[in-house]
Amino acid sequence: MMRLAARAQALTASVKPNTRAFSAAAAAMQQFRTEKDTFGPIQVPADKYWGAQTQRSIQNFNIGGPTERMPEPLIKAFGVLKKSAAKVNMTYGLKPEVGNAIIKAADEVIAGKLNDHFPLVIWQTGSGTQTNMNTNEVISNRAIEMLGGEKGSKAPVHPNDHVNMSQSSNDTFPTAMHVAAVSEIHHRLLPALAHLHKALDKCAKDWDSIIKIGRTHLQDATPLTLGQEFSGYAKQIEYGIERVNATLPRLYNLAQGGTAVGTGINTKKGFDAKVAAAIAEETGLPFRTAPNKFEALAAHDALVEAQGALNVLAVSLMKIANDIRLLGSGPRCGLGELLLPENEPGSSIMPGKVNPTQCEAMTMVCAQVMGNTTAMSVAGSNGHFELNVFKPVMIKNLLQSVRLIADASVSFTDNCVAGIQPNTRRIEAIMKESLMLVTALNPYIGYDNAAAAAKKAHKEGTTLKEAAMKLELLTSEQFDQWVRPEKMIGPSD
Amino acid sequence: MMRLAARAQALTASVKPNTRAFSAAAAAMQQFRTEKDTFGPIQVPADKYWGAQTQRSIQNFNIGGPTERMPEPLIKAFGVLKKSAAKVNMTYGLKPEVGNAIIKAADEVIAGKLNDHFPLVIWQTGSGTQTNMNTNEVISNRAIEMLGGEKGSKAPVHPNDHVNMSQSSNDTFPTAMHVAAVSEIHHRLLPALAHLHKALDKCAKDWDSIIKIGRTHLQDATPLTLGQEFSGYAKQIEYGIERVNATLPRLYNLAQGGTAVGTGINTKKGFDAKVAAAIAEETGLPFRTAPNKFEALAAHDALVEAQGALNVLAVSLMKIANDIRLLGSGPRCGLGELLLPENEPGSSIMPGKVNPTQCEAMTMVCAQVMGNTTAMSVAGSNGHFELNVFKPVMIKNLLQSVRLIADASVSFTDNCVAGIQPNTRRIEAIMKESLMLVTALNPYIGYDNAAAAAKKAHKEGTTLKEAAMKLELLTSEQFDQWVRPEKMIGPSD
Amino acid sequence: MMRLAARAQALTASVKPNTRAFSAAAAAMQQFRTEKDTFGPIQVPADKYWGAQTQRSIQNFNIGGPTERMPEPLIKAFGVLKKSAAKVNMTYGLKPEVGNAIIKAADEVIAGKLNDHFPLVIWQTGSGTQTNMNTNEVISNRAIEMLGGEKGSKAPVHPNDHVNMSQSSNDTFPTAMHVAAVSEIHHRLLPALAHLHKALDKCAKDWDSIIKIGRTHLQDATPLTLGQEFSGYAKQIEYGIERVNATLPRLYNLAQGGTAVGTGINTKKGFDAKVAAAIAEETGLPFRTAPNKFEALAAHDALVEAQGALNVLAVSLMKIANDIRLLGSGPRCGLGELLLPENEPGSSIMPGKVNPTQCEAMTMVCAQVMGNTTAMSVAGSNGHFELNVFKPVMIKNLLQSVRLIADASVSFTDNCVAGIQPNTRRIEAIMKESLMLVTALNPYIGYDNAAAAAKKAHKEGTTLKEAAMKLELLTSEQFDQWVRPEKMIGPSD
Amino acid sequence: MMRLAARAQALTASVKPNTRAFSAAAAAMQQFRTEKDTFGPIQVPADKYWGAQTQRSIQNFNIGGPTERMPEPLIKAFGVLKKSAAKVNMTYGLKPEVGNAIIKAADEVIAGKLNDHFPLVIWQTGSGTQTNMNTNEVISNRAIEMLGGEKGSKAPVHPNDHVNMSQSSNDTFPTAMHVAAVSEIHHRLLPALAHLHKALDKCAKDWDSIIKIGRTHLQDATPLTLGQEFSGYAKQIEYGIERVNATLPRLYNLAQGGTAVGTGINTKKGFDAKVAAAIAEETGLPFRTAPNKFEALAAHDALVEAQGALNVLAVSLMKIANDIRLLGSGPRCGLGELLLPENEPGSSIMPGKVNPTQCEAMTMVCAQVMGNTTAMSVAGSNGHFELNVFKPVMIKNLLQSVRLIADASVSFTDNCVAGIQPNTRRIEAIMKESLMLVTALNPYIGYDNAAAAAKKAHKEGTTLKEAAMKLELLTSEQFDQWVRPEKMIGPSD
Repeated sequence: MMRLAARAQALTASVKPNTRAFSAAAAAMQQFRTEKDTFGPIQVPADKYWGAQTQRSIQNFNIGGPTERMPEPLIKAFGVLKKSAAKVNMTYGLKPEVGNAIIKAADEVIAGKLNDHFPLVIWQTGSGTQTNMNTNEVISNRAIEMLGGEKGSKAPVHPNDHVNMSQSSNDTFPTAMHVAAVSEIHHRLLPALAHLHKALDKCAKDWDSIIKIGRTHLQDATPLTLGQEFSGYAKQIEYGIERVNATLPRLYNLAQGGTAVGTGINTKKGFDAKVAAAIAEETGLPFRTAPNKFEALAAHDALVEAQGALNVLAVSLMKIANDIRLLGSGPRCGLGELLLPENEPGSSIMPGKVNPTQCEAMTMVCAQVMGNTTAMSVAGSNGHFELNVFKPVMIKNLLQSVRLIADASVSFTDNCVAGIQPNTRRIEAIMKESLMLVTALNPYIGYDNAAAAAKKAHKEGTTLKEAAMKLELLTSEQFDQWVRPEKMIGPSD
Repeated sequence: MMRLAARAQALTASVKPNTRAFSAAAAAMQQFRTEKDTFGPIQVPADKYWGAQTQRSIQNFNIGGPTERMPEPLIKAFGVLKKSAAKVNMTYGLKPEVGNAIIKAADEVIAGKLNDHFPLVIWQTGSGTQTNMNTNEVISNRAIEMLGGEKGSKAPVHPNDHVNMSQSSNDTFPTAMHVAAVSEIHHRLLPALAHLHKALDKCAKDWDSIIKIGRTHLQDATPLTLGQEFSGYAKQIEYGIERVNATLPRLYNLAQGGTAVGTGINTKKGFDAKVAAAIAEETGLPFRTAPNKFEALAAHDALVEAQGALNVLAVSLMKIANDIRLLGSGPRCGLGELLLPENEPGSSIMPGKVNPTQCEAMTMVCAQVMGNTTAMSVAGSNGHFELNVFKPVMIKNLLQSVRLIADASVSFTDNCVAGIQPNTRRIEAIMKESLMLVTALNPYIGYDNAAAAAKKAHKEGTTLKEAAMKLELLTSEQFDQWVRPEKMIGPSD
Repeated sequence: MMRLAARAQALTASVKPNTRAFSAAAAAMQQFRTEKDTFGPIQVPADKYWGAQTQRSIQNFNIGGPTERMPEPLIKAFGVLKKSAAKVNMTYGLKPEVGNAIIKAADEVIAGKLNDHFPLVIWQTGSGTQTNMNTNEVISNRAIEMLGGEKGSKAPVHPNDHVNMSQSSNDTFPTAMHVAAVSEIHHRLLPALAHLHKALDKCAKDWDSIIKIGRTHLQDATPLTLGQEFSGYAKQIEYGIERVNATLPRLYNLAQGGTAVGTGINTKKGFDAKVAAAIAEETGLPFRTAPNKFEALAAHDALVEAQGALNVLAVSLMKIANDIRLLGSGPRCGLGELLLPENEPGSSIMPGKVNPTQCEAMTMVCAQVMGNTTAMSVAGSNGHFELNVFKPVMIKNLLQSVRLIADASVSFTDNCVAGIQPNTRRIEAIMKESLMLVTALNPYIGYDNAAAAAKKAHKEGTTLKEAAMKLELLTSEQFDQWVRPEKMIGPSD
Repeated sequence: MMRLAARAQALTASVKPNTRAFSAAAAAMQQFRTEKDTFGPIQVPADKYWGAQTQRSIQNFNIGGPTERMPEPLIKAFGVLKKSAAKVNMTYGLKPEVGNAIIKAADEVIAGKLNDHFPLVIWQTGSGTQTNMNTNEVISNRAIEMLGGEKGSKAPVHPNDHVNMSQSSNDTFPTAMHVAAVSEIHHRLLPALAHLHKALDKCAKDWDSIIKIGRTHLQDATPLTLGQEFSGYAKQIEYGIERVNATLPRLYNLAQGGTAVGTGINTKKGFDAKVAAAIAEETGLPFRTAPNKFEALAAHDALVEAQGALNVLAVSLMKIANDIRLLGSGPRCGLGELLLPENEPGSSIMPGKVNPTQCEAMTMVCAQVMGNTTAMSVAGSNGHFELNVFKPVMIKNLLQSVRLIADASVSFTDNCVAGIQPNTRRIEAIMKESLMLVTALNPYIGYDNAAAAAKKAHKEGTTLKEAAMKLELLTSEQFDQWVRPEKMIGPSD
């Protein structure tokens, strides 16, 4: 009491009604029921399926507000896990009536129908125990309700003895992390990357005869085709997909069956492999039981590894989006090689301005993902003994990274890449002015002479040809024969 | 159209009803009105105050879902800014009827009453233009409504010409960033840190006579008091508060008046200083106009600096929370010097287990803040010319860091620090067994002899006294006189 | 001149003789020769093989001092590349006399004999152009010398026309980066990791019958064997090796043949593949030509990816080293389960103190590698158009990470892991005291009753058995039959 | 022995002669003497002043090679500390003969004369104990030699009893860290930043009448002067200097006097303050004794804070250097507004190419410093109880960051900024073409009309004036009167 009073005093200025799940006013109107755990009875909103441990977590971890709740794909993965565990537990003696009720309630969790009953934030117990219990409580109470029982009675479906049967938070949470991560990678990230890759690849092919100036060190260099330039971007994404795929083997390993410390205490032999098989069947993804459960509970290197692949994607996408907005800079005072689609008014003060906003959303996403990578390294490296207790922050950062890169890739593809038009007139005009066409002269007049011609042209503001001829390094005909951009975009025969 | 179709095909598996603001089903039931911007007309939900540009952003930036919306303190700061600008604009000719209506509508934004009308996510235009326009549109329409006009008519209160009068997204967004950051630091972070500091300082004072073993390299070292140990933690937080305060001078500088590129085009002389003064009055915080608006638009070093102070806090809090959970480890097989409060059941499989969950929430927060620091560095370093276009991701990371550290500090204080009990029996028992009391002998028998005694005791499992006497380095009386823990906790006279 | 004077004035206090390659005093005694490049003549120390461009870089990039020089494995890789290019160039018309002289000089570079002739620091041109030219100049001058010519004459072996024939800095430097990275990974990192893995695996096997307390949340949990605990560590390293190997496919791709912008201008068809084959032959490693040279010059995602695998290793090793020092904490006031080897005196003030110093060196290395990962992300994401110009900082961070993890792994293995002794007496004593053996009672008396017994024992300081019997939950015989640690370390039949 | 054999076997391929301090061959030729510590006798090279503990560290921490040695400013700071401690110890009874000999030997350490006698790498004991002992041993042996004694005899100057009198590694190393950090910041960093600031400020002033196009989102915006643009850069550096200065108060606090765990055991009252005063006198910098020694040993938040200021500088400098190279892009196909100084040939294949190499060195430095910031966060957050044992890696990262930013700032100033020439002809030409001059029309024809004119001109490739007149929005005279760039670079009266 005194503690809360002290806090109220300290924070009066910042108390915000919507950050407290149950303000005094709301509480007055709300109906409650009593739930119990080993700490004793506690009041819980009557219309919610959660129980005592969830309620305690709401009260003990008032951190960050509703936007910081456990990500939905993780809740869904918990549904998959509890359903699969019930199936297997029935082969080990769980009564079918109870088991089937659990399965039906878990199906509702999977379908997202019970999302409002998962109020807990990421910033809770580091093992995610309270979200495991939240799931157990919701499924238990929903199952009880389906069977005509009374919420909070723990009968006939007990959250610990039945829903959590042969399980521990310490193996369920990492199992749900892997299931959620792999599902999101398969169903969200990889299709989005393929979508972007296809669009970039189309650019590479469509624009393969548009010769343009190359730029190195941001300075004019020898020419290449616009298609070649975009082929590099496409290749980056292609490799990015390879990289994500290369991390999956270790994400397919599931911790389930390790229970409290990795030994599998309180499970029966074979339980681990059967649950993994049931999850694989439920999801259609090749999950399997982790060969070493101690590693699977105490370390989440597989998530750090996956984040590493996302980090490379962020690095790639930052480069691509940056290049595209630079090439689209202008319209009059920039490079102006590309015309980006105009999707919205660009300025509240400068009329008619159109900005590369999709590139901006993408590069902001990339900055976030690089930051998330640091968060993952810190979190992953700080486990102790048999358990890493940074689980919630790790899965949140990974799932956010997956979601942001996927969504931004789709948005960037549809609202930017797919609509880019090369400004061919300008591309050709500036390419022809470039002094770096001089490189074609190396084999004929040598590097030092070529350098002299380029420097002279630069200093005097003339064309390369004029300068080279003034220096009597070649004739007009030789220049025209030797300096041909279309011959400079590949090795010679 | 085709683009959206392509996307739908690619992502069918992952389409989630709640991530699309307007699904087909919902759309069927919803009423719309037509809004217009320079891109043309667009349908907007009839019950929302936002206009065309907000609606375009919803459709063009479908990235991340509702949890990724612009943070509320930023929206509130926009309310403060628009109110203050209207006040000042009235001194420059804005009609009082219009100006006062803007002020009333802005007051509702400040009060959080219109939060549902700010649907945009962080991952939009990098200047935050669309959130500036969202604010302009909401205030304009709400003001029109108050004045009996028709939403969407832009009369008598025009979103650009009146609400955004003499402003640009490029100066309003950074102004709102600073107002939001400073407000949250003042009203949320600093009180929370003071609250934690007070609790740690109380421990330092209350426990100043409890002598315990010191540990360096995790190995037993010379003794200190438990109060001394906690005084170090208190000092870290005290310095942390100093560090946050040291960043404020540059956060008080407001970009407002720089308009599009920092020159202040389309403003009148003195507008910048007047707006800053109005904001200072409105908030009670010492804001002032930035002496150089080019820096204020193009760079957000002040935010990176503030994040740096939060990063040090994360580093400090990680150490403190780690120490506390290690000192509380056990109950039987750990260090066991502290008894942490028991707030919830600890394990879904191990009955009676109680865990240092507040430390876990805190250390997860710290990992996130360290990650956010990297995101801020990347975002802050990637501005171009007159504008940094990573504004939304920067303010989001800063505000999240502020909020998480503040909330976690309060939670950690109230639910952990305030309830810690020293396990004095154990503290004394293990301290007395320590071999490092040998350090007290250095001045009497020399370092090398002292080392020999300690090593002998360690090897033979005896007490230090026995070993030293066996080596004939001292008498029993001398040992008792020289080795007195209470004399080892400070310099000698 | 004036600029240097201004600088001297500003920095007088900090001028350090050893940071200027050529102080006035040294210069007075030194002999010089004149070298020339397209910028004109310049004085070069007479006893050095480098030429004009290297000399300019020394003078223009006085940043960081000698410890910041280009890493030796990169110089060696340049030797491999120049040798291989000469071989291939001879098939395209390079005169054998010249080609063979290049090969012989390059062999000396490979052997490390000319390391003193590579004075350039990392903080130079971002393409590494000057280190490519340093190599060209050194090999050219050394080859000229071997052929009896005069250093600086560029005849008969020209640094550009012959040593750099068909090459550009833009393709040689990334080629050398991949060759150096792969070589160090193969010859240094992977053997070191295998060495560590073997030692950890031996612990896992040797100690598989030592039952100890498990710890989750740093709190006592159910037992496991010390061997099981170490099997988790061994698995982390095994996966770490898999992860490093998974990045190699993209590191085997060589940029050589892309020349200036990726098009391969100034090369002959097939040159790229032939050089890659020659390098593969020279190194015995399966290098191949990159399928897309635009990606290979403009992005170094493959290095960021490899750093990601090193980052996971850092995360793993931080956990392992931390656990080991915590388990070895004491000797009297810590966990005391492991006795770590004593390698040196631990304290200059506390006689007889021995510290887990190998763990400390290792964890410091891990912190550095995590930091290097951030540096790589920033550097990798900031390329522009046809060239990433953060090449030197990228390869430096990768090679340092490889070297540190490799060396620290060997040191940690030999000086710590290999000498660890379990303190079996203590391990057994504290394990038996643990209350978490209660978990074994779940199936017999239920979770809630078991929790009550554990809490009672904790509160009253009694054994679990006494508490359970007082609560009349079981008989003495039942307790002894049900609570058997050796039955708690795996699933039941 | 066996351990070394195992290692040799594992690493045969990579054994490099220069990474082992004493290879077999070298050993054969070397003379040795015997030194002793509490671990027993050990052979030490006869010509080196270091003793037994240094020698053990060489052998036990073969990590990283010579480039990873402790930074010289830290060694120098140790010299300052040992000298100051000897002075103070003489007031507490240290014999003048011994004290003065220590002072003289310490002076040689300060002068850098004994650098070859400090062979230890960063990757050693995390408290830096071995570098403290290295200093004690070198000063002791050098002092003994000066007094005519025998190296290794520990008489008349004992490394522990005299050189380390009243000290512990745990307080000396953090003291030396702060002394080194502050010295380098004062004597190297701040002058370098002032040098850069002055050059940028000169640009701001010199170019204040050059009107140019502004760019936001990389798109053309309203004009500003080149001087205004550079004033933003100058302001960033000015604030950067403020930020560094803001961290100094906490860096001035010295840990000395805390000894082993912060209590000051084995010191006399007042020793701490006297040593701080002596160091302040020796360095001329306002050091003082830390008010809380527990914080000073257990946490290095002050270093993390200082690194945070360096991180902001890296963020600022990345922006500035990026802008400058973009403005200097071209010469024919880029923005071309600035002509950067040509310092060296730019390409080994493209003759005459000149690149913004100073910008590249600078931005690489910035990437490294951002990475170092992550390393510092990880290291700073991982202390345990009375000691943070990531000291060496922390001071190394800070000192490297200081050195690199300082050196790169001087190089960037002298070799780039000071020589930049505005390309005024081009600046004016493209500014005048810009459509964003339309912003000046807002007050006259309204935002929507202005937008229509700009869009029309863009679509049809005409001038703004033509478009506006075609739309009959204004007359030719009105356009000329309203659209005047020189009136667009500030607020109106």
